[in-house]
Amino acid sequence: MNKKFQVVGIGNALVDILSHVEEGFLAENGVEKGIMQLIDTARAAELYDRMGPAQEVSGGSAANTIAGIAALGGRTAYVGKVRDDQLGAIFAHDIRAQGAVYETPLAGAEAGAETGRCMVLVTPDGERSMNTYLGVSEHLAPGDIDESMMAQAEWIYLEGYRFDGPESHEAFAKAIRACRGAGGRVSLTLSDPFCVERHRDAFREMIRDHVDLLFCNIHEMQAMYHANDLQAAMEMAAAEVDIVVCTASEDGAYILNGGGMEHAHAVPTEINDATGAGDLFAAGFLYGLTQGYDMLTCGRMGCVAAAEVISHIGARPERDLMELFREHGLV
Amino acid sequence: MNKKFQVVGIGNALVDILSHVEEGFLAENGVEKGIMQLIDTARAAELYDRMGPAQEVSGGSAANTIAGIAALGGRTAYVGKVRDDQLGAIFAHDIRAQGAVYETPLAGAEAGAETGRCMVLVTPDGERSMNTYLGVSEHLAPGDIDESMMAQAEWIYLEGYRFDGPESHEAFAKAIRACRGAGGRVSLTLSDPFCVERHRDAFREMIRDHVDLLFCNIHEMQAMYHANDLQAAMEMAAAEVDIVVCTASEDGAYILNGGGMEHAHAVPTEINDATGAGDLFAAGFLYGLTQGYDMLTCGRMGCVAAAEVISHIGARPERDLMELFREHGLV
Repeated sequence: MNKKFQVVGIGNALVDILSHVEEGFLAENGVEKGIMQLIDTARAAELYDRMGPAQEVSGGSAANTIAGIAALGGRTAYVGKVRDDQLGAIFAHDIRAQGAVYETPLAGAEAGAETGRCMVLVTPDGERSMNTYLGVSEHLAPGDIDESMMAQAEWIYLEGYRFDGPESHEAFAKAIRACRGAGGRVSLTLSDPFCVERHRDAFREMIRDHVDLLFCNIHEMQAMYHANDLQAAMEMAAAEVDIVVCTASEDGAYILNGGGMEHAHAVPTEINDATGAGDLFAAGFLYGLTQGYDMLTCGRMGCVAAAEVISHIGARPERDLMELFREHGLV
Repeated sequence: MNKKFQVVGIGNALVDILSHVEEGFLAENGVEKGIMQLIDTARAAELYDRMGPAQEVSGGSAANTIAGIAALGGRTAYVGKVRDDQLGAIFAHDIRAQGAVYETPLAGAEAGAETGRCMVLVTPDGERSMNTYLGVSEHLAPGDIDESMMAQAEWIYLEGYRFDGPESHEAFAKAIRACRGAGGRVSLTLSDPFCVERHRDAFREMIRDHVDLLFCNIHEMQAMYHANDLQAAMEMAAAEVDIVVCTASEDGAYILNGGGMEHAHAVPTEINDATGAGDLFAAGFLYGLTQGYDMLTCGRMGCVAAAEVISHIGARPERDLMELFREHGLV
């Protein structure tokens, strides 16, 4: 199999607005720590008014993953909706400049919303609390899915967050059909425990019927399978999916495949901004997988890429990931 | 004198688009290293297409200085033109969030241009090469100068770069009249040696007649006074201006005032991105001056603030400057 794309990602196209805040800012402003909250236009304006000076960096969970794979030299494309505005131009520039194909039609003024953004509040402990105004990223519809692109993908990578939109289930279904119909495989990230709560049944059905590789962290895994014991939850997942990868912060990642379990250790690093850790883990893992590495090496690649991205502000890699793989003896 | 504002800055309101590039990228794309080049819309689009993923941070030379003084707790305002677009909203948010008053009327669609931006290409040696699309920042006109604000300023701080615009000489003249008429004082930064070449006579006249404090670096000083010897150039400047401050990169800064010369040593630091070094030097210096510190302490405050900003990407301070002043025994 030597398809045009190794990984095609689909998700919420967002620009991150990153700012350092003191711990107290979160409580004073009703922001829940460490998770992603969806917010509306009015709340976005209010929060932005209150937060300090910020910097803007292209983000979006699956987009970060695709940017990471592209930075490693993987053949990638991304599908996600922005508007014909300045933030949309920034998003499109950054993902293309990283080497990914990005051709999703721009939304125009008729969309009645702007390019989506995520206000990321980083506390002194490096934890990030995300406040997402989806904007037009929510409007991703079946019409945005180019079936020939999906057919040319070895893997598609679906972002669980994108379940928060009316036409997106259909868009995902269309992508899955086109990809699998051409012999490609499907990966999904559960994105967030609250996202899992909102869409458990739809996720479960998709996982059982169509997903070959499931990414999640321990909180999402437990939310999904309602098991208190991680081991039990992972076995439930492994009964339904070929490859299950569960990240566990400083405990690294567990990989279940074909009855066996591997454990990749986390790479110690100073945490400056946890944004993008899971996204870049998936980037490293998928890069390894599409290059034919064994599961443990894929997991270690994921851990190295995740460590890079949490060592600095922003959810896209800044250092040369391949050089880091070399330093860790992975390539 | 206890005026509402300690420093009011006037300059080009820009958002910086920062990207790391290899040394070869500059020559291949006709970018001159280490200086600021003005570019038009077409060139801006071409260069942006070619450059890698970037991050956006509010910039603008005088705006960076005002942000630095505001971060130290100084009472500040800023005047510079943005449009009613997303980059304009980012600029306005960031400078207000830092604590500065910012009330310049927004340009609308009739301006026929967008908010200005500066593509800052950072090479591995930390040097930055700036490519500025002025956009509506060029449209700053006398009507944007609020005379009562200028009258309430202990100091105004004029950005030499803003001489690159048709109505800006008049705007500066109006600001100077209102400020001096109310007993305030005028500072000017020469900004850039090429900027000095473009406007030498106008600068010279303004300096002689109206400027109390002149900021420059050694290249600008030499371009201004056509002296090969720095000492001679500084003496020529000092004959015309009450306080002359000349920065000299790793040699720190020289301050001439009342016949004497002081030398503030640079603060050793790793240079990650030289953008904003001069701007933050001016911030530290003006903060010290408005707090009544002696010239040498003002110079040392400038060097500490400059060292902070070159240690990271972006031209606005990230660490607590007052804490750094304490660490250096300056406050």
